[in-house]
Amino acid sequence: MPQKTKEEYIQSLRNMDFSLYLFGEKIDNIVDHPMVRPSMNSVAMTYELAYDPQHEHLLTTTSSLTGRKISRFCHLHQGPEDLVNKVKMLRLLGQKTASCFQRCVGMDAINAVDSTTFQMDMKYGTEYHKRFRRWLADMQDNDWTVDGAMTDPKGDRGLSPSEQRDPDLYLRIVDENSAGIVVRGAKAHQTGALNSHELLVMPTTAMRSEDKDYAVSFVLPADSAGITYIYGRQSCDTRRLEEGDIDSGNARFGGHEALVVFDDVFVPRERVFMCREYEFSGLLVERFAAYHRQSYGGCKAGVGDVLIGAAALAAEYSGVSKASHIKDKLVEMTHLNETLYACGLACSSQGHSTPSGTYCVDLLLANVCKLNVTRFPYEIARLAEDIAGGLMATMPSERDLRSPAIGHYVEKYLKGVFEVGTEERLRVLRLIENITLGTAAVGYRTESMHGAGSPQAQRVVIARQANLEAKKSLAKDIAGIR
Amino acid sequence: MPQKTKEEYIQSLRNMDFSLYLFGEKIDNIVDHPMVRPSMNSVAMTYELAYDPQHEHLLTTTSSLTGRKISRFCHLHQGPEDLVNKVKMLRLLGQKTASCFQRCVGMDAINAVDSTTFQMDMKYGTEYHKRFRRWLADMQDNDWTVDGAMTDPKGDRGLSPSEQRDPDLYLRIVDENSAGIVVRGAKAHQTGALNSHELLVMPTTAMRSEDKDYAVSFVLPADSAGITYIYGRQSCDTRRLEEGDIDSGNARFGGHEALVVFDDVFVPRERVFMCREYEFSGLLVERFAAYHRQSYGGCKAGVGDVLIGAAALAAEYSGVSKASHIKDKLVEMTHLNETLYACGLACSSQGHSTPSGTYCVDLLLANVCKLNVTRFPYEIARLAEDIAGGLMATMPSERDLRSPAIGHYVEKYLKGVFEVGTEERLRVLRLIENITLGTAAVGYRTESMHGAGSPQAQRVVIARQANLEAKKSLAKDIAGIR
Amino acid sequence: MPQKTKEEYIQSLRNMDFSLYLFGEKIDNIVDHPMVRPSMNSVAMTYELAYDPQHEHLLTTTSSLTGRKISRFCHLHQGPEDLVNKVKMLRLLGQKTASCFQRCVGMDAINAVDSTTFQMDMKYGTEYHKRFRRWLADMQDNDWTVDGAMTDPKGDRGLSPSEQRDPDLYLRIVDENSAGIVVRGAKAHQTGALNSHELLVMPTTAMRSEDKDYAVSFVLPADSAGITYIYGRQSCDTRRLEEGDIDSGNARFGGHEALVVFDDVFVPRERVFMCREYEFSGLLVERFAAYHRQSYGGCKAGVGDVLIGAAALAAEYSGVSKASHIKDKLVEMTHLNETLYACGLACSSQGHSTPSGTYCVDLLLANVCKLNVTRFPYEIARLAEDIAGGLMATMPSERDLRSPAIGHYVEKYLKGVFEVGTEERLRVLRLIENITLGTAAVGYRTESMHGAGSPQAQRVVIARQANLEAKKSLAKDIAGIR
Amino acid sequence: MPQKTKEEYIQSLRNMDFSLYLFGEKIDNIVDHPMVRPSMNSVAMTYELAYDPQHEHLLTTTSSLTGRKISRFCHLHQGPEDLVNKVKMLRLLGQKTASCFQRCVGMDAINAVDSTTFQMDMKYGTEYHKRFRRWLADMQDNDWTVDGAMTDPKGDRGLSPSEQRDPDLYLRIVDENSAGIVVRGAKAHQTGALNSHELLVMPTTAMRSEDKDYAVSFVLPADSAGITYIYGRQSCDTRRLEEGDIDSGNARFGGHEALVVFDDVFVPRERVFMCREYEFSGLLVERFAAYHRQSYGGCKAGVGDVLIGAAALAAEYSGVSKASHIKDKLVEMTHLNETLYACGLACSSQGHSTPSGTYCVDLLLANVCKLNVTRFPYEIARLAEDIAGGLMATMPSERDLRSPAIGHYVEKYLKGVFEVGTEERLRVLRLIENITLGTAAVGYRTESMHGAGSPQAQRVVIARQANLEAKKSLAKDIAGIR
Repeated sequence: MPQKTKEEYIQSLRNMDFSLYLFGEKIDNIVDHPMVRPSMNSVAMTYELAYDPQHEHLLTTTSSLTGRKISRFCHLHQGPEDLVNKVKMLRLLGQKTASCFQRCVGMDAINAVDSTTFQMDMKYGTEYHKRFRRWLADMQDNDWTVDGAMTDPKGDRGLSPSEQRDPDLYLRIVDENSAGIVVRGAKAHQTGALNSHELLVMPTTAMRSEDKDYAVSFVLPADSAGITYIYGRQSCDTRRLEEGDIDSGNARFGGHEALVVFDDVFVPRERVFMCREYEFSGLLVERFAAYHRQSYGGCKAGVGDVLIGAAALAAEYSGVSKASHIKDKLVEMTHLNETLYACGLACSSQGHSTPSGTYCVDLLLANVCKLNVTRFPYEIARLAEDIAGGLMATMPSERDLRSPAIGHYVEKYLKGVFEVGTEERLRVLRLIENITLGTAAVGYRTESMHGAGSPQAQRVVIARQANLEAKKSLAKDIAGIR
Repeated sequence: MPQKTKEEYIQSLRNMDFSLYLFGEKIDNIVDHPMVRPSMNSVAMTYELAYDPQHEHLLTTTSSLTGRKISRFCHLHQGPEDLVNKVKMLRLLGQKTASCFQRCVGMDAINAVDSTTFQMDMKYGTEYHKRFRRWLADMQDNDWTVDGAMTDPKGDRGLSPSEQRDPDLYLRIVDENSAGIVVRGAKAHQTGALNSHELLVMPTTAMRSEDKDYAVSFVLPADSAGITYIYGRQSCDTRRLEEGDIDSGNARFGGHEALVVFDDVFVPRERVFMCREYEFSGLLVERFAAYHRQSYGGCKAGVGDVLIGAAALAAEYSGVSKASHIKDKLVEMTHLNETLYACGLACSSQGHSTPSGTYCVDLLLANVCKLNVTRFPYEIARLAEDIAGGLMATMPSERDLRSPAIGHYVEKYLKGVFEVGTEERLRVLRLIENITLGTAAVGYRTESMHGAGSPQAQRVVIARQANLEAKKSLAKDIAGIR
Repeated sequence: MPQKTKEEYIQSLRNMDFSLYLFGEKIDNIVDHPMVRPSMNSVAMTYELAYDPQHEHLLTTTSSLTGRKISRFCHLHQGPEDLVNKVKMLRLLGQKTASCFQRCVGMDAINAVDSTTFQMDMKYGTEYHKRFRRWLADMQDNDWTVDGAMTDPKGDRGLSPSEQRDPDLYLRIVDENSAGIVVRGAKAHQTGALNSHELLVMPTTAMRSEDKDYAVSFVLPADSAGITYIYGRQSCDTRRLEEGDIDSGNARFGGHEALVVFDDVFVPRERVFMCREYEFSGLLVERFAAYHRQSYGGCKAGVGDVLIGAAALAAEYSGVSKASHIKDKLVEMTHLNETLYACGLACSSQGHSTPSGTYCVDLLLANVCKLNVTRFPYEIARLAEDIAGGLMATMPSERDLRSPAIGHYVEKYLKGVFEVGTEERLRVLRLIENITLGTAAVGYRTESMHGAGSPQAQRVVIARQANLEAKKSLAKDIAGIR
Repeated sequence: MPQKTKEEYIQSLRNMDFSLYLFGEKIDNIVDHPMVRPSMNSVAMTYELAYDPQHEHLLTTTSSLTGRKISRFCHLHQGPEDLVNKVKMLRLLGQKTASCFQRCVGMDAINAVDSTTFQMDMKYGTEYHKRFRRWLADMQDNDWTVDGAMTDPKGDRGLSPSEQRDPDLYLRIVDENSAGIVVRGAKAHQTGALNSHELLVMPTTAMRSEDKDYAVSFVLPADSAGITYIYGRQSCDTRRLEEGDIDSGNARFGGHEALVVFDDVFVPRERVFMCREYEFSGLLVERFAAYHRQSYGGCKAGVGDVLIGAAALAAEYSGVSKASHIKDKLVEMTHLNETLYACGLACSSQGHSTPSGTYCVDLLLANVCKLNVTRFPYEIARLAEDIAGGLMATMPSERDLRSPAIGHYVEKYLKGVFEVGTEERLRVLRLIENITLGTAAVGYRTESMHGAGSPQAQRVVIARQANLEAKKSLAKDIAGIR
């Protein structure tokens, strides 16, 4: 069986040699760093559940390339069931980690690159698809986690890549020879980059001929020479450096973001999947974005489940769970959360086959899904904060609870209903804080807003896909016009 | 082929003998009454499109009972594809009629009665299911339109059926003999009742033993003796009695509602499908409601398509279609409309088989679908009114436009862009008025709100289906509780 | 005392000679026409309450010109108390008529024209203000109702007045001599025009030099030769032509809209207040719009009060008034309604004096007020429809209720709680229908949306008034930038 | 002049002897502690601006007791202008600190206690009001900051104070003698308690006779023996312990929350203002809550101004400020923010005099104000996060920016438009993070939600103040009922 166990996954990262900076310092032992490890644990859950008989059918599938059993994260979707199962898998992982588990980016990237390179080869007679499929077979057999690296820093948003004062603000080809290419630039907001074995780089936007050096896609081992990672701050990140396990809200799981710098990095030709074919950069972005917008209908609903559960517990621990307004807010949270999931399912069930045979989501509905994701988690979070009460943001630290001097005050005065310990109450409130304001809010709020493209990007696609002309025809027909 | 043509359908209604009152008068020729006919035309579209090669695959299917080709409206769903196709069919019909086309109620009723009677027979050894299936074969072969009659007048909502001062405020069995039963009461808000061949009556709510006389289901020809129809008013209904075809906004299509009174009507035993088995009334209601809540994810999205198209036309005719705020509102309308559709698809794709083999939608997602339907059409309508401009509600009548005295003023001063005739502009604005304020608003707003149960009914089901305990477990696990 | 009684007001209209067309026919007796009279009754309420000791303090005040007691509708605001009292008066009238009572347009127009003409005279040495004040003294002494006529038909919205193919699509000066000017064009959406003694015409937008013939303001008796009124249709308007008083929902009160055509109408110079001073057309529009946007914080809150009351009654009559979700919806409706009122009060209390001494509202807050008015009445209406239940849109006509043949069925089956008559229940549901879908919806919805300018117009002013530069400075200071 | 300078204020706190615990440790030098000082700076701004000629008229006023010039924070409101000026003062301070400046609680408390004690004395012949006024004169003369301490921990929310298993979960009188009373319990969520000279304790809810020991109000020096403060955690609080001034987002200003424990503390009788008069606890709570709900219409609008400005800067620094969707979001943020302010102004302008002469806000409108505050800041924050882009939550730390090893990467790749330094861009994004996710989010989100009572508390008051009976009468009158 090609799949890694959770332990093998962690071990495989230990064997890698990342160049990571955190708070301005180089970090040697990434795997055991208390601020990094929780995000690794989230990815590890994608390995662990593949061995769980209850969930195996979602986490694994049969490779369309080799016929072997593989992780669904390494799979090319073959039909609507695959897409639906992907959404269900992501919801499950959201439920188990209450955070961003990062690995979907690579899954979405391979599916997008697969069909796009196929179409490139059809048009240009190139070999990108063949190369890609060779690498993909390795990926499946090694059960790699892959970072799908798309977003460039972008500098001045009003200017195209080649118009920027600093030409490196979009990643680009700076040199080329028969053996391969040399690239310079950076990818920003790289979720889970340090938990990945490979980086699959893609262009960030549709491009024109003058930007053709920026139309580049390739894959590299994540610890290749010349790649530097700079760790992103998250709200409340350093609580993980403190003693205790309450204040972080979610001691075991998390996500991370990194700025990934490519300082004249060499890419062997065999690993290059797009090289100046600028006409295809838009298609690649659109496909990747569509898959990734679908993803959020799963994972965010999973995190939402935890948040709803936490809010229900908070209400119970305070003795208000019978109040009609509390019950009503929990219904509203559930309603919004299930609407996200419904959109994720719908764009999956209405997918279509691409020329390479890889299956793609419905573009309109995937964008509708994501646009709801930019709104409803915020309202769910607001309702959770409503139910949680002010204590969530005013209560003392775990160290106060443990303090010999004043711990008894905390114990006594922050108790809710008699049957539940004060510590339990604090724990659930810290979890809500974590998702609404803390480290997980980066996944549940910021990523919901900007991940897979900011809301305006979805609106642009919806406008394009809305087929207003057909709708006008319907209206004319009813109104008796013409 | 068992299907009726559109003309045969109209003719079949001509042959019936309804007892209909409208504005206090008995109406003899229902079929040609200008206030009734448009609603008949909407139902007729379900027959017409079955013969349209482009849409036949949605409108017709193969009977699971006889293997014959039948209308999907007469079909027992056999799997998720059937449910998905139902939603697509309903959206199509909404697009073609811009109104409630009424026939889905019967489709939803037969599916609910089918599985419920099966379970009743399993428990009690009764013959309801067998009877029902016999009648259903007739229905399929005759391509009947059936009114699924569920909602009782209900009197004082704070009292159960048997607690009402007037015991007839819920329809009930008042007599019984070996040949059959006698029923008295009424069904309110009966959409499309007069366009139906048969009335399939169901109880309106879960009941307890003291209410068992109210737990009754049966089917009767719609023009049976003792049944009286009283036509419901709709906003702007009498514009259909005026000369011209502009002011009504939608001259050809519409819907209707009726109060249907059963004044001691005899029902032969062969046509009785529930007779005091009160424990099953709740299940029947829940099933019917779930199917019908799914339906709205299709039909309302179809009407929404017309409204979006009309708003886009109105903008174009006024010369504002390039304004960014107009484009943005059209995107928002599309986004909301597609969210409804997505929910309809999702509850379909996640359905499950019932003991009778008939397939049922996912209960939670179907209710989520409908709860969105109680909100988004209102916002879509608001945005349409925004784009339409004030003229929609201030412009003169068609008779003014045609008036020799002042028609030229209307023509001159209400012209928008030069290329489009004033009449075209008025037509599209009247269509928007029709859907947002006029006769079609009864379908697009009131029915979206209360059809298949008012929003609070959906919230109750969502609360029951939310599985808060499982969500609490997830939260405890993450928070380290226990 | 200069004030008219209600009866004198009606009589004064009887003495006028309007050229009105309705359904293509010329109407001779406007005052007693069943489709016109209710709107006249609404205006008459502004006269009636001036004699009501309880409300006199709101409806009347002391003229700043003459020191005489006058109607507040003829008053130039002298300070924040005047503006606050205006809002309170409008709320009261909304409560008493549940419709648009139309007379505020003239009040807002005189205040805008007063300060603008003052500034014109200051700049150009013209006599507009003096002329205006002379006419205003007459208006106050005669207690006239005045139509403030601003909105032109506008044709192609993408073109300026002079760019239109038909130069008359904005009202303009077509001839001029020493005695006066001749104007041609039309004013659309003229609320209450036919209930007015005088028409005070203003330009509709800011203009440039090429549009200077369109920069014109004047006043004329409403029945002047050459002026033709074409009555606008309203949803359900013809219910007023039917027998009975239930189905219209509000038998006594209403509003109307008219297209007012000026076919080469002569205006004596003494009555001209702007004549090609295009630089001031923008200021005049901005001032009028600000006053009128304030107005809606009063009148719509008043209509909202009636709708909330009607929804509460509907709940009571159905036996659901104790349900927590019903109570919660009534709270929400109240909350939204009071937010509108709060904005109306706030922009009044923060007003400022203009050079003529006339007091003006705060521009930013008045636009914020109106932008909320384009949203909240829609949500209040939605909630009212939720509480009302489906019966509102499905119940039979009053003629059915009165029918000897089937009236007893209606009586029996549409009864709610035992203590309340069926007719009462129908009456209150028809009132809700009237405000949400019927004739009053034109005032409560369409006018809330587009009256005093469509929402985008408010957004433009808010953008202009937001003072982003100052806010950026605040942020820089906190962030330690510079 | 009785006012303290900013320096005198800080010095006066240095002279106090608080018993404060933070992270389980006792803190000796509160004033200079990096996690406490910013909150002290916010309060200090209320002293500093009193000496600023530009703002003096808002920050200071004339005492109604002594005729001396005092801080408005020590003032008993004498009319609507005072209430309006209070709102304006609070908005100004929100703009200057971008955080909760804490001092309004005491101002709201003195106004509530003043009128309530007056009414207590009238009813019972007690001397509470006289005592209170004596203390108040001292407060005014010493320019004290006072913590209005209302909220008890409350334990099981389903039980009344006396029903709790632990009787101390609401603060209560445990002993009494002629010299005074002894109290035990705690006050939770005490905003700014440690920046206060005095604690003015009030009961937390309406009470019945069995709870009379809990009906207690008094004032004590904040550093009295037996009072222990336990510092509340805030999101990102420890960033203030790090080197640098960027990552905290707002280096100078903040707020704090504390759990304040009263362990059998003696209160001299002269300082007791309510002692078991349980019938008045509800009135005191209602009054305090109303004043404090008004406050949020000022301060949160002020913080909103900074957030809008920061979002506008972020857009500018990224080169997207010209995009129509960005401009539209800034308008929406402004609109919502001004709606809050409008509600604050409205409830002020419509206030009324209480029996003691102290002026009170309009109860209904103050609650409407606060209910909007529980919603709009969340939406404003969501829009700010939208405009800010993902970088806000993924960018590296200040230490990375300063790092010799990789600082140049940060500098290069996180640059936006050419004209603006990378550091400036990071600063403004950190400010947005601070308000939406960081320490200031506790003020801008949690406090907006729960401060002055959670949203349900506002709904209860709105329900009580809505006067539904009067609204029903209006509806009946229009509908022709009775």
